[in-house]
Amino acid sequence: MIAVDWGTTAFRAVLLDAAGAPRDRVEGPWGILTVPEGGFPAALRERIGPWLAAGQRRVWMCGMVGSRQGWIEAPYLPVPASVAQLARAAMGVPFDGAEIRLVPGMMVPGQRPDVMRGEETKVAGLLGTLPAAATLCLPGTHSKWVRIADGRILHFESHMTGEVFGALRGHTILARTMPAAPHDPDAFARGVRRAREPGGLLHHVFGARALGLTGQLPDASAASYLSGLLIGHEIAAALADAAPPVHLAGGATLVPLYAAALVALDVPHVVHDVDAATEGLRAMAQSWT
Amino acid sequence: MIAVDWGTTAFRAVLLDAAGAPRDRVEGPWGILTVPEGGFPAALRERIGPWLAAGQRRVWMCGMVGSRQGWIEAPYLPVPASVAQLARAAMGVPFDGAEIRLVPGMMVPGQRPDVMRGEETKVAGLLGTLPAAATLCLPGTHSKWVRIADGRILHFESHMTGEVFGALRGHTILARTMPAAPHDPDAFARGVRRAREPGGLLHHVFGARALGLTGQLPDASAASYLSGLLIGHEIAAALADAAPPVHLAGGATLVPLYAAALVALDVPHVVHDVDAATEGLRAMAQSWT
Repeated sequence: MIAVDWGTTAFRAVLLDAAGAPRDRVEGPWGILTVPEGGFPAALRERIGPWLAAGQRRVWMCGMVGSRQGWIEAPYLPVPASVAQLARAAMGVPFDGAEIRLVPGMMVPGQRPDVMRGEETKVAGLLGTLPAAATLCLPGTHSKWVRIADGRILHFESHMTGEVFGALRGHTILARTMPAAPHDPDAFARGVRRAREPGGLLHHVFGARALGLTGQLPDASAASYLSGLLIGHEIAAALADAAPPVHLAGGATLVPLYAAALVALDVPHVVHDVDAATEGLRAMAQSWT
Repeated sequence: MIAVDWGTTAFRAVLLDAAGAPRDRVEGPWGILTVPEGGFPAALRERIGPWLAAGQRRVWMCGMVGSRQGWIEAPYLPVPASVAQLARAAMGVPFDGAEIRLVPGMMVPGQRPDVMRGEETKVAGLLGTLPAAATLCLPGTHSKWVRIADGRILHFESHMTGEVFGALRGHTILARTMPAAPHDPDAFARGVRRAREPGGLLHHVFGARALGLTGQLPDASAASYLSGLLIGHEIAAALADAAPPVHLAGGATLVPLYAAALVALDVPHVVHDVDAATEGLRAMAQSWT
């Protein structure tokens, strides 16, 4: 089979053999934003044409390719749901040359809604290595905290941490005193610990400036401090509603930061280093057959 | 005397008679950012030259004109401090044609520092109408919450609420679905009440998007909701450390919003509609003589 994780800014496909082992891969900055309207079939053929020509017929896809801005909109599946339910909810996509299944995103229904698209597949890929009940954190532009029980996704919560960091760093008075600089682990941990104190995020963020003005935080360390402050607030809020240890999975940049923040907060954690999206698509394809 | 409130983006001067009553005023978008280096004496003469020519000699100034980017840097005075102490700490500024006194900003010293510049004078101007012990809120780009006791400024706390709103509204995914639209008081109050619930600000902010995606928040109401969310978080955090009623003073745009937020939270408040900066400068000049 072919497992495709097609997001807003990146495309990633893995060719798996019958035993589920990776045989080949293709990836690049060919996110859905680069695809012209109606251009998805051609874009997919351009990337994985040789595999299709070699006789591969089963393609599973996840990510923003299933959003309103993508190929076809695959409606959100509400929590709670199992991997088998996610697989059954996958949409067939008309395509000449293969049988494509598109995994839906998931939603928390009700008056306090939440949504994810792409992360549900990563969670599905991690379920096999998680304990029966677990708290999972997928750091990102919009981090996801997911509660797992008995092989099902029970609930999840998004935090706009990465995007808020970018907006504050680039578009507030803080921008003036935050040069590009190497990560400062001590300033980061200081920010994380500050998040645990009273005062609230909006006050703490102003504090980054006051620390600079009073000579207690060098400009070169200010971005690390702000990053720690925001990640610390995210973790504190998420753990009010979920039990440690925190199972971490995701990119090579953010996972170490979140791990360091959890250490600074004395919260036990486990890092999972797997290709979760591919494994999730494989698990769904297997459940389907 | 002449009372001058010279901020980052605005200039405002009031001519007061011997009894402290306003006789004339000059104001405009001539903030310190519009003044070239070394140009402050000329800029001041351009604005209030006629009053000086008519024999006025006493000028009191407050605001960012006393910052590193202003005319002369007037070092921050630490809390706690009285109006008389603020007045005594005012710096003499060399100027041909008048005796200028520049009010310093104030700071909270220590490892959790805070700073304000300009607002200390507004607080001084409000002290006469506040009870002996009071919680004062000056909404703004960087809102200030000030604790007053026995005629002194005991402590204060800044919240970057206004600026965070601008950054989120303009530079995150929320921007795509927040058209310019009239204020929606119901959506605003909904945001305020959401702030009281668990989850944290970073999660609640993502919720604004999820509410839109699930059809529960019209795009035209999204900015009002976000504004309520942020102001609600500010108020909740500030009141963890200060007692109501909240005394509100400031601009005609933000004070009604904060008043509405306090109503939505069932927190008693009092609105003060006075020219606090001018009154503060007058009180300091009087304490000086």
